[in-house]
Amino acid sequence: MEKIIEKPKLSKATTKRLSLYLRCLKGLEKNGVTRIKSSELSKMTQVGSATIRRDFSNFGELGRSGYGYNVSDLIKVFSEILDTKEEKRIALIGCGNLGQALLHNNFRRNENLNIVCAFDNDPLKIGNELCGYQVHSIDEMDKVLKQEKITVAISTVPSQNAQQAIDQVVENGITAILNFAPDPLVVPENVHVHYIDLTSELQTLIYFDGQ
Amino acid sequence: MEKIIEKPKLSKATTKRLSLYLRCLKGLEKNGVTRIKSSELSKMTQVGSATIRRDFSNFGELGRSGYGYNVSDLIKVFSEILDTKEEKRIALIGCGNLGQALLHNNFRRNENLNIVCAFDNDPLKIGNELCGYQVHSIDEMDKVLKQEKITVAISTVPSQNAQQAIDQVVENGITAILNFAPDPLVVPENVHVHYIDLTSELQTLIYFDGQ
Repeated sequence: MEKIIEKPKLSKATTKRLSLYLRCLKGLEKNGVTRIKSSELSKMTQVGSATIRRDFSNFGELGRSGYGYNVSDLIKVFSEILDTKEEKRIALIGCGNLGQALLHNNFRRNENLNIVCAFDNDPLKIGNELCGYQVHSIDEMDKVLKQEKITVAISTVPSQNAQQAIDQVVENGITAILNFAPDPLVVPENVHVHYIDLTSELQTLIYFDGQ
Repeated sequence: MEKIIEKPKLSKATTKRLSLYLRCLKGLEKNGVTRIKSSELSKMTQVGSATIRRDFSNFGELGRSGYGYNVSDLIKVFSEILDTKEEKRIALIGCGNLGQALLHNNFRRNENLNIVCAFDNDPLKIGNELCGYQVHSIDEMDKVLKQEKITVAISTVPSQNAQQAIDQVVENGITAILNFAPDPLVVPENVHVHYIDLTSELQTLIYFDGQ
């Protein structure tokens, strides 16, 4: 496993499954499991074995027929693909309960993902500290985003104000946005918005529970 | 559109895409858009046109060649599939910042999804009110889950305590669990766990922003 892994072009669906595999594999490794078959991983992840084998085949010959896959090799390959090598400096826009949960947790399992500044429009929060972060006013965004060399934004701003906040983020050259408000945003083509819609997630769960 | 829609068997990936289509379509309808082509929806959702057409074909003939799809018809069909007709009574396990964000929001856009009780193991929270909910001790779970006729649980319990909390949830016959801790849980085969791992979501976004 000494060769350098070339990053293949992956679809969004495959990339999300890689995250899922990686999480399960890390759990297995923690419990002392050293190898796994696609059928076993399929049971854990609820992804079909054929899909797992197809996803894995993006990375060359990872497994051996009859033996399965070496857990730590898979972890190495998938981490190489998914983990960012450089620090990603993240701005949080919106410091309500959800924003505070994010500040508090701050992706601490991944040392290269760092929320470094926080914004809100609530006069009671601006200028004060929350979870160790000074809260900036939205009006200061242009200055602070540049100063802090931000490249990623997370928005927990409610739908009715989200577009306005995101317009300002985009004007500052940020092209990666994680958005917790469900209504779609209008952004230029080079900007990637990833939505987390908790109602959709719950609906998907309930749909499958009802089958 | 008066016929009753039979619920087809959908994959998890298709179901999640339906949620995404539904969110976009509702946004379009709000902005006065009445019809849409798969190519336009593809641009909005970043899902390929062929996938969109294949997904839509699960529901019979929804569109007309050259005309596209009627937005309100699609909303009706997809809502029929995804929206629960009966109330889902939900227990929240873990009332930290993230839990409080969920209590505060409580899926208010969907009247059939209701968090009705909340649990925590923090003596400072137990017995007190948070966002209008009385916080119960984890020890009271067996009693309260039955009393409140809970069928769905949302857990924001950190990984190190999640398995224990979920075991108790499962013992009470709950088969649908939305889990915010990234480590995989061990549950019986009839129990559906849906994971929301914010680090994975951010990694997926960053992977695509780097392409």
